[in-house]
Amino acid sequence: MTQQTDEKDFLAHYDSQQFEQLSVTTDLLIFSISDVKTDNYRKLPEKMMSVYLIKRSQFPCKDKWSLAGGFVHPNETLEETAKKVLKQKINLDNLYLEQLYTFDKIDRDPRTRILSVGYMALVNRKELPSGIQQSNNWFNIQQTDSGLILKNEQQPDMIFDLSNENCLAFDHAHIIQVGLNRLKNKIEYTDLAFHLVPHEFTLTELQNVYEAILGKKLLAPAFRRVIKSRVQPTGHTTTGSGHRPSALFYYAGDKSII
Amino acid sequence: MTQQTDEKDFLAHYDSQQFEQLSVTTDLLIFSISDVKTDNYRKLPEKMMSVYLIKRSQFPCKDKWSLAGGFVHPNETLEETAKKVLKQKINLDNLYLEQLYTFDKIDRDPRTRILSVGYMALVNRKELPSGIQQSNNWFNIQQTDSGLILKNEQQPDMIFDLSNENCLAFDHAHIIQVGLNRLKNKIEYTDLAFHLVPHEFTLTELQNVYEAILGKKLLAPAFRRVIKSRVQPTGHTTTGSGHRPSALFYYAGDKSII
Repeated sequence: MTQQTDEKDFLAHYDSQQFEQLSVTTDLLIFSISDVKTDNYRKLPEKMMSVYLIKRSQFPCKDKWSLAGGFVHPNETLEETAKKVLKQKINLDNLYLEQLYTFDKIDRDPRTRILSVGYMALVNRKELPSGIQQSNNWFNIQQTDSGLILKNEQQPDMIFDLSNENCLAFDHAHIIQVGLNRLKNKIEYTDLAFHLVPHEFTLTELQNVYEAILGKKLLAPAFRRVIKSRVQPTGHTTTGSGHRPSALFYYAGDKSII
Repeated sequence: MTQQTDEKDFLAHYDSQQFEQLSVTTDLLIFSISDVKTDNYRKLPEKMMSVYLIKRSQFPCKDKWSLAGGFVHPNETLEETAKKVLKQKINLDNLYLEQLYTFDKIDRDPRTRILSVGYMALVNRKELPSGIQQSNNWFNIQQTDSGLILKNEQQPDMIFDLSNENCLAFDHAHIIQVGLNRLKNKIEYTDLAFHLVPHEFTLTELQNVYEAILGKKLLAPAFRRVIKSRVQPTGHTTTGSGHRPSALFYYAGDKSII
């Protein structure tokens, strides 16, 4: 580089190609709570986490299931790319998004070196368009004795064992596990879990969400003591469905800062 | 794209230039605990966090202070780049590193669009080469009524106000604040703080580290109750320095998995 006299002059002559550049994608972990109830074994949570996957129609990894993702363009922030992917590939808007981690294994993509910035979207399934609610893209996340498996909600014989790192396209089995761990850690000290319930919810519904994320049953009295300061009664109760009416609550904090 | 008959054929013809690529750097937040004691005001921690900065000698942002950083090459993982930067720019090896966040503001670098993956290094200052321990690159992080400031340890009149986003090169003032917040959240549910103390430490030293990160005084009996399960007495005590001897402890967990 020749001697530069000032910064403007330096920038006018800067050639971004002098440094090697990389391909960068964002991949979206869309998590929700499944409506499918587990068999009522003792100590298993009643609800399960689920993740939205897409079957790839193109090379590479054609016909494998994958997270929704897309390339980051130089004029986009990472979150803008993530939102564009959600809109273009699944027609979803306005989801809660947070950056998870940047995945960088050298050979994670067979095309070329591609970094992927993982984003996590937490959605309340009932607020989605019914076509997406009912789609065969949702996979339940189940804890088994040998580890985590994904089970397609519509076709329960379609099962992927997450301990097999090639069960999904690219390193997406790994990304899902990293996202689940982040969520487990964060629900203890943030209010992230409230993104997964409707605006009005019963304390049992809320407890189901915590249990689904943590993968274990919680004691109701202890749970209610911990959660009390973060919820307010709406004054309404549930109706119908053959159960006793339950009090409905709303989230009393500020979801935008959690 | 023409019709591909199989994945191998597809990959043989893949042109990574068909998608726009980006420049990517890693920037290193090197945190330590300062040896400088604060004035003994009530309720202020006795020790402070400090961060290692480098004065830029080249354009852009020439003469501004910045985090150590470097471009990611296609054949390196992000952590490999981070380690290379530590070695080449500061001659440091074997530090505890963790990925923090990927910073993506469109205009964060005046040269071109550059993503930066922040890495956090936590070091025990006393284990560093003495030239680095004594260097004028360490800035104390102090909480004031109007927010966080950085104060050079050797030249206390060199002060940067982190609420001024241009006080350091690029978006590095912002990256430091994100790193501090991450650390504050994580020391409550991980054992990260143990990277910042020597192999053998007194409980007061350990409490000083927690207080420096949290930016507030803790009550010793409560702190000792919480920390008890994670430390073991070495059987030794401190000697000299005009104080009563204090029992020395070691970390009883596995730092490699925190």
